[in-house]
Amino acid sequence: MSFSARDISIVSVGAGNLATNLVKALHDVGFPVLQVYSHTEQSAAALAAAVCSGYTTDLSELINNADLYIVSLKDSAFTELLPQIVAGKGNAMFVHTAGSLPMSLWEGYAVRYGVLYPLQTFSKQRQVDWGEIPFFIEASGSEESLLLKYIAATLSEKIYEIDSEQRRSLHLAAVFACNFTNHLYTLASDVVKKYQLPFDVLLPLIDETARKVHELLPEQAQTGPAVRYDENVISKHLEMLADDPHKENIYKLLSESIYNRYRK
Amino acid sequence: MSFSARDISIVSVGAGNLATNLVKALHDVGFPVLQVYSHTEQSAAALAAAVCSGYTTDLSELINNADLYIVSLKDSAFTELLPQIVAGKGNAMFVHTAGSLPMSLWEGYAVRYGVLYPLQTFSKQRQVDWGEIPFFIEASGSEESLLLKYIAATLSEKIYEIDSEQRRSLHLAAVFACNFTNHLYTLASDVVKKYQLPFDVLLPLIDETARKVHELLPEQAQTGPAVRYDENVISKHLEMLADDPHKENIYKLLSESIYNRYRK
Repeated sequence: MSFSARDISIVSVGAGNLATNLVKALHDVGFPVLQVYSHTEQSAAALAAAVCSGYTTDLSELINNADLYIVSLKDSAFTELLPQIVAGKGNAMFVHTAGSLPMSLWEGYAVRYGVLYPLQTFSKQRQVDWGEIPFFIEASGSEESLLLKYIAATLSEKIYEIDSEQRRSLHLAAVFACNFTNHLYTLASDVVKKYQLPFDVLLPLIDETARKVHELLPEQAQTGPAVRYDENVISKHLEMLADDPHKENIYKLLSESIYNRYRK
Repeated sequence: MSFSARDISIVSVGAGNLATNLVKALHDVGFPVLQVYSHTEQSAAALAAAVCSGYTTDLSELINNADLYIVSLKDSAFTELLPQIVAGKGNAMFVHTAGSLPMSLWEGYAVRYGVLYPLQTFSKQRQVDWGEIPFFIEASGSEESLLLKYIAATLSEKIYEIDSEQRRSLHLAAVFACNFTNHLYTLASDVVKKYQLPFDVLLPLIDETARKVHELLPEQAQTGPAVRYDENVISKHLEMLADDPHKENIYKLLSESIYNRYRK
């Protein structure tokens, strides 16, 4: 079986950060995008403006003749809207892009289905480098798997076939490595702002912290007062956070976690 | 006043991660390093092997005729050993490299003193790119300040003069942005390992998370289930962590922190 991007027409069900980035990238490599749905008109219109002419905020207006429906919704919305999404679309292929939802949710609703999960953090304001993003796919059958591999390969060289449980764990790991990490950057920016210093002075440190774990395992790369158990520093830092119990708690819990891991 | 690297001789009091990296870099740009002290013989010998012939593990053997003593010790050791470090060294210049120690600790012990604080995470196994590392300096007088600016400028273009309180806040911010961040990478690596996936699949995500905050403020760059308050995902993740109360607590606290910040 051979595929060609221009023969695989796509509808984007969702126009959030991930959908916006993924569908624009697929459009750019030649996949025809026929329609965009979002319950937020602004999001639907913005993505449609970049990739196609048609958008809707009403699922009953979803066109029926696309080859592939890429569903990228908040998990709760996905489950609720699933019957409406598949209704009347016969032999089309359906994928969702969620790390935390099992593929089996499609069972009984669709015949050809799967999951296309690019592991990355997406914001609408920012373009990502697709070539380095790993795609994790799962499919209802071998033909569907081939199709998803073809689609992923138009954007990236890193394609892995994994099951729903592994994908769920990747998503959980990503929350630690990305979402929580970014929040720590935010807390750090609060701290420097309070003392009239720009956030930018932290960027070389942030970059090196990320670069370091390309060479060393993160467990070996650990530095700072908690791993060397420098009680003087830790107690001074806690004093500085005394007026911000929220950050103080995070500081305590993470320091304990580091200390407990390395004292063995 | 003009300086030349070869006229400023250095003794390294300390041979930890920071001292090893900094003193090697200063040696490489032409500063003569006369001696290395560490209470750990292995560390002292390893650094001395790279930069000079002499090392000692006994502070009373510290030579007296260097121009600059760079003191890079654990905070508690610094305070305890300070009188011994300065003893008999007359008009030499003393700096420490600690984010959390005020410059005033030198008062009454030394006449010419200051702080030379490169904001970075250092491991002995890894070379850093000094050109991008910001140096934060503080000095007892204008001559001392000029000397420290000259020294920092041999390695980096980013030199800032700040006071002890600002430096302390930078250090605290660095704990959030680097030490805690690296620990989150470690926790993420635990999660993927448990499901037979290599840590490497997370690297593009880690890199992009760091790159993103060069363009967006971290507060704007936040993604993930907590910021969009996707309760389904959060509760599934907490279930997955039920056998690891430690990670579960960290997940809860950081998710709450994100949620509370963005629900406004």
